[in-house]
Amino acid sequence: MTGKLIGVGLGPGDPDLMSVRADRLIRGAATIAYFRKKGRPGRARTAVDGMLRGDVDEIAMEYPVTTEISLDDPAYNTTLAGFYEEVATDVRERIEAGAEIVVPCEGDPFFYGSFMHLYERLRGHVPVEVVPAITGMSAAWTATGHPITWGDDVLSVVMATLPEDLLEARIRDADALVVMKIGRNMEKVRRALRAAGKFDRAWLVECASMAEECVMPLAEAEGRSVPYFSIVLVHGQGRRP
Amino acid sequence: MTGKLIGVGLGPGDPDLMSVRADRLIRGAATIAYFRKKGRPGRARTAVDGMLRGDVDEIAMEYPVTTEISLDDPAYNTTLAGFYEEVATDVRERIEAGAEIVVPCEGDPFFYGSFMHLYERLRGHVPVEVVPAITGMSAAWTATGHPITWGDDVLSVVMATLPEDLLEARIRDADALVVMKIGRNMEKVRRALRAAGKFDRAWLVECASMAEECVMPLAEAEGRSVPYFSIVLVHGQGRRP
Ligand SMILES: C[S@@+](CC[C@H](N)C(=O)[O-])C[C@H]1O[C@@H](n2cnc3c(N)ncnc32)[C@H](O)[C@@H]1O
Ligand SMILES: C[S@@+](CC[C@H](N)C(=O)[O-])C[C@H]1O[C@@H](n2cnc3c(N)ncnc32)[C@H](O)[C@@H]1O
Repeated sequence: MTGKLIGVGLGPGDPDLMSVRADRLIRGAATIAYFRKKGRPGRARTAVDGMLRGDVDEIAMEYPVTTEISLDDPAYNTTLAGFYEEVATDVRERIEAGAEIVVPCEGDPFFYGSFMHLYERLRGHVPVEVVPAITGMSAAWTATGHPITWGDDVLSVVMATLPEDLLEARIRDADALVVMKIGRNMEKVRRALRAAGKFDRAWLVECASMAEECVMPLAEAEGRSVPYFSIVLVHGQGRRP
Repeated sequence: MTGKLIGVGLGPGDPDLMSVRADRLIRGAATIAYFRKKGRPGRARTAVDGMLRGDVDEIAMEYPVTTEISLDDPAYNTTLAGFYEEVATDVRERIEAGAEIVVPCEGDPFFYGSFMHLYERLRGHVPVEVVPAITGMSAAWTATGHPITWGDDVLSVVMATLPEDLLEARIRDADALVVMKIGRNMEKVRRALRAAGKFDRAWLVECASMAEECVMPLAEAEGRSVPYFSIVLVHGQGRRP
């Protein structure tokens, strides 16, 4: 009797914004597996705190430390790939032995999620189910109190990890813009927005839908060091009746 | 005692994918207001069928018939603007008289939603709350069984209503692509995808997460007439460990 892998999107943070299905799956899970950094509680694990069964089996998939390896160094990818192979093998064996393993995922699992790396290694081998969820960006634009897109606006979702020239070009081309993975790239994002003439319309949203939620014009966030859950956005200005 | 306007995102269609908050608000609503075409049940209304209180007050906001007016004709916008003013005035008066009015919205309310037109006319005048939701596109890419974005992929969300040259340029520039509002624009979308060299990687998803859900490579959908709830997408191919 084979079990199953279930990637469950948790949404942007507020447990009230989980889907009815996600809420049910998390509360009923016999086994959960989640990614985290060594020595940290893990963001996905923290998000389901207080919802789990008392007898739940927990599998912490702990990222290897890569701080000394540069992102461009091929060793970075090799180390991560080795890690994903290892956890995928472990999870696969448990599922083949009958376990149903729920993987809580931040936001929507198939939208820049780490679950995707596990999923790609297991699909075709064991039964897999994925539950979509509200993205961090939906909670972020809702928090600004302004719709993100109008009429024929093109929405561009851009990672702040892009090289500066590409980032600037993408920001310039966007009608409506969402920039994610800000972290230590904030100064680059500011420069690119300025160069593209969009700095004055940009908003910063930290921890959308969480207790610590914070929304402000980016121009008022000078010098601010932002948390992992941060999004910069520029609203579209498309036609509207 | 002023009431409140609450825009409640229903998600992509499957009621199990509503948020816990949306589910509670819809089931508890004393008054709901929804857009629909004259003579139609209304898609948002249909989505909440069976969830409403027996004594719920219903306000159907019926679009004026605009089929003889071309989208480019200024009369189109004038007619629609007049309609939105009218329903906004009605809803505002009820709220000022104390009503709490729940507006069920397809997908996420602030993402190309018709609720936005009501919202813009009422914010600042009455208390307003907006509940984000799972977008149709999240359900669509989940239905394909493949993650939409990897690494530094830029996601572009594009309306099929764009002029063909712009549509083609936007499709060309995208790493990962979502095309919405397909309807009668399907042939234009096909041509633009072909011109941009992305036709062979494109998927068609109809009615994502609904009972009628249908997923296929776009190349296998030749001559097919697609329903209102249709999305064409091309997955990103960004770096992955
Ligand atoms: C690895 S991506 C994962 C995205 C996630 N799968 C989703 O659907 O939103 C992480 C980035 O998402 C953004 N993010 C996710 N949730 C957020 C929230 N609640 N508030 C602000 N930013 C958020 C941040 O930019 C963060 O760097
Ligand atoms: C006016 S837009 C509204 C989008 C909505 N607010 C959302 O968040 O998805 C309507 C378009 O959304 C897309 N759409 C919404 N839900 C869908 C679903 N479940 N399946 C396929 N397409 C969907 C279709 O392309 C449709 O033409």
